[in-house]
Amino acid sequence: MSLPSVILAAPAASTSLGQVFASEVLGTAFLIILGAGVVANNILKGNKGLGGGWLMISWGWALGVFAGVIVAAKSGAHLNPAVTLGLLSSGAEEYAPGVAVSFGSTMTYLAAELVGAFLGAVVAWLAYKQHFDAEESQAAKLGVFSTGPQIRSYAWNLVTEVIATFVLVFAILATNAITKSGGEWPGALGPLPVALIVLAIGVSLGGPTGYAINPARDLGPRIAHAILPIKGKGSSDWSYSWVPIVGPIVGGVLAGLASIAVF
Amino acid sequence: MSLPSVILAAPAASTSLGQVFASEVLGTAFLIILGAGVVANNILKGNKGLGGGWLMISWGWALGVFAGVIVAAKSGAHLNPAVTLGLLSSGAEEYAPGVAVSFGSTMTYLAAELVGAFLGAVVAWLAYKQHFDAEESQAAKLGVFSTGPQIRSYAWNLVTEVIATFVLVFAILATNAITKSGGEWPGALGPLPVALIVLAIGVSLGGPTGYAINPARDLGPRIAHAILPIKGKGSSDWSYSWVPIVGPIVGGVLAGLASIAVF
Amino acid sequence: MSLPSVILAAPAASTSLGQVFASEVLGTAFLIILGAGVVANNILKGNKGLGGGWLMISWGWALGVFAGVIVAAKSGAHLNPAVTLGLLSSGAEEYAPGVAVSFGSTMTYLAAELVGAFLGAVVAWLAYKQHFDAEESQAAKLGVFSTGPQIRSYAWNLVTEVIATFVLVFAILATNAITKSGGEWPGALGPLPVALIVLAIGVSLGGPTGYAINPARDLGPRIAHAILPIKGKGSSDWSYSWVPIVGPIVGGVLAGLASIAVF
Amino acid sequence: MSLPSVILAAPAASTSLGQVFASEVLGTAFLIILGAGVVANNILKGNKGLGGGWLMISWGWALGVFAGVIVAAKSGAHLNPAVTLGLLSSGAEEYAPGVAVSFGSTMTYLAAELVGAFLGAVVAWLAYKQHFDAEESQAAKLGVFSTGPQIRSYAWNLVTEVIATFVLVFAILATNAITKSGGEWPGALGPLPVALIVLAIGVSLGGPTGYAINPARDLGPRIAHAILPIKGKGSSDWSYSWVPIVGPIVGGVLAGLASIAVF
Repeated sequence: MSLPSVILAAPAASTSLGQVFASEVLGTAFLIILGAGVVANNILKGNKGLGGGWLMISWGWALGVFAGVIVAAKSGAHLNPAVTLGLLSSGAEEYAPGVAVSFGSTMTYLAAELVGAFLGAVVAWLAYKQHFDAEESQAAKLGVFSTGPQIRSYAWNLVTEVIATFVLVFAILATNAITKSGGEWPGALGPLPVALIVLAIGVSLGGPTGYAINPARDLGPRIAHAILPIKGKGSSDWSYSWVPIVGPIVGGVLAGLASIAVF
Repeated sequence: MSLPSVILAAPAASTSLGQVFASEVLGTAFLIILGAGVVANNILKGNKGLGGGWLMISWGWALGVFAGVIVAAKSGAHLNPAVTLGLLSSGAEEYAPGVAVSFGSTMTYLAAELVGAFLGAVVAWLAYKQHFDAEESQAAKLGVFSTGPQIRSYAWNLVTEVIATFVLVFAILATNAITKSGGEWPGALGPLPVALIVLAIGVSLGGPTGYAINPARDLGPRIAHAILPIKGKGSSDWSYSWVPIVGPIVGGVLAGLASIAVF
Repeated sequence: MSLPSVILAAPAASTSLGQVFASEVLGTAFLIILGAGVVANNILKGNKGLGGGWLMISWGWALGVFAGVIVAAKSGAHLNPAVTLGLLSSGAEEYAPGVAVSFGSTMTYLAAELVGAFLGAVVAWLAYKQHFDAEESQAAKLGVFSTGPQIRSYAWNLVTEVIATFVLVFAILATNAITKSGGEWPGALGPLPVALIVLAIGVSLGGPTGYAINPARDLGPRIAHAILPIKGKGSSDWSYSWVPIVGPIVGGVLAGLASIAVF
Repeated sequence: MSLPSVILAAPAASTSLGQVFASEVLGTAFLIILGAGVVANNILKGNKGLGGGWLMISWGWALGVFAGVIVAAKSGAHLNPAVTLGLLSSGAEEYAPGVAVSFGSTMTYLAAELVGAFLGAVVAWLAYKQHFDAEESQAAKLGVFSTGPQIRSYAWNLVTEVIATFVLVFAILATNAITKSGGEWPGALGPLPVALIVLAIGVSLGGPTGYAINPARDLGPRIAHAILPIKGKGSSDWSYSWVPIVGPIVGGVLAGLASIAVF
């Protein structure tokens, strides 16, 4: 089964791994600038969007995906190791038109996603620099960068992340499958269906863990939190950091495997 | 009058009833995971989306439909007995391209929708397991699974559900009719128009009864509530349970009959 | 200048005035069911959406237009005398494909829009019957049916309605003009652009007068308010009723005239 | 590299600079009517949308762009000097189909954007006249017209505006690039992708400075604030006024230059 990519109307020319790397770095950075940004706006002291609420946060992340997919169309705009590994486990032959699945291309996607997420977090921090300085809560500062559970329990937090990521990756693979079988509509909508799925997951499954659903989205900014000279920052909470890595990978791979049976 | 299905750009190959069953189970499960999920996020103790409000809840259910339709495209994505029976009463010849209307196919849709709704409720409960444990209100716990009226009156609650479901099914049949008469736009939008109609019904007609507008959406999760070992749960309120079954069926059938005169 | 209609991908066959009447009644009724409904949900005692806020209300009206346009595609879905008269003043030759502009067709649209708005208000009242009974505020009950100003001043209230309706009708005519000049995108989106314009007007210009921007939307429900046996209702505020009639008509006609110069 | 314009399905005939001027004045005026309007609705005393929140404000500006692009399709709907200068620095040969890049056309766009923004602010003031009169806060009155920082620091406020405008213009150029390379989807969506990007920037990067991301959007209304006889108005805060001019220009030009390397 050959699934082309999450971008369905894609360039015809072949794409080098260097281009893939640059494209995924850029797209994932856009995702995190806007995703970390909306959290900062909502929770850091003194912002115009302070207390805007969970629906606003969910729109920010959804449209972060929308913008990220637009700027990373060349590489199929995975922006997420769970998507890359979901495509791999689904038996896809290409990650994007002209980008064959291989060990090298897989590593290129994963590395670019992590680097892009790190860089995006740095830019979001710069955009909100003064509000990080004014904010006193260490938890709020970390919350802009990385996810954390409301009720800590590694097992149940994992369950939530696995379910949410399964929904994400399975829906993406379903979109690709419909397109392949002759339906033309997802091509005309471009990144909007995926953005709406992310909005759905945010409002509907984001309550317990803050919906990482993307290992790079959580790890890259957490590294940035650990490295950046953020005024008055506290712990980067490394003890939790494996949950939003393992959960999304498991959920994405399960979705890929399930797609083989279903589509 | 032959209405193809709610999915307008659909696979050309014929679809077996087994495939229909699997597809509708999957799609309805996605609908309920996201729909029950957004209620849990909004009302169960300790969630990040606590108190997110009715607009957030309405987006969650609307995008639950969006995601459910995407993953169930193969079977026309009814996800709702009121839609199945509305198509039947409209005189449709097919439930989806390659799926003829018959007693067997009708039963397959209805059964799959109920099973999918039940399974989706189980998954939503797992995703929010710790918050069910932490929450003390029995009404809140039931509210994640099933609808209930704000002012109990079987007659008036029925009226509200009939009206809301009529709006839903009639709009779906109108979409199909436009497509058949040469308009191409609904095909390109895929499930978005239906999702927006569901959003409209949520914000505009959801106030009195919580807009079941779907017998499976209410009964499947209510059965799950009765069966699952939910900590500190109360009654499953079976005395009200027939209202969100009868109301949507009446509304859907009336919409199907009305469509014969109008389109 | 020939502007086909607000629905751009429309049926090829000719449409009788009887069909136009039925179609516009139905579409305007859908608009008001959902529009009056969202206000009821937001302000009448005991509803699940109580206090949902202005953004929720604006979505309800916008998607009321969306649903109304879908079910009234056959007649071009004016749903609004300001749109009908705006098309007339723009020099359009057809109100919809196969519906020539004439005195008879103009009267048919206007009458149908008023009748549909009246009927829609009756249905919305039925859907929220118990909440009308429970609510004590006479202003809230009237507010579900008709608009009213926050600061009463016939002159300034008129100004606001003229501006808001100009924006609505001019944007609709712009959409039609783009389609005519070879752009294909509005056709594929169907009613979504118009719905988004209505959402914009709601959040951005609805503050002072509640954005009637449609004489039928205000007058039809006001007549319903006067006639229906609503428990504990007060005045139907007829002294204000001419503002949301005259303002939108002036705004719509000005937009039609302006479109001749611009497009 | 030739980027056609932000409107992708555009008229084939050539467009005079007079038509460009009129089109951009109109489109930018629509943008500001709706953008200033949503702020007025949210913060001026007595409005129905009072306290509607940042998500509502962000929708208002996003759909202001949507409406503005629809009415200004003829000129490519820049509506923003940062977009015009971003296209220029990207090496575009045309500002819109049939509008060559030249000193004269560049000046025409910039002047029209400023004039349109000024006129739009006047109209928004008229629509909210009574609420300006009733409001006591001078800061609220200025806030309807122009942006201001939450924590004043010219350097950091500039950083935020540069980042936010880079995201805007780079995403617009990415959309154009995808369309050019054979992807057809942005054409069918028309102004929706750009509107969603603006929504993303509002919720995600608008916290510190109120996201001018457009020199005309800030300067035109600020001039209107200085000139109009607004009751009880205070300072127009000219000391800050250069930040939302310089920041967006720098961000837009950087995005244009970056696009040469990437697309």
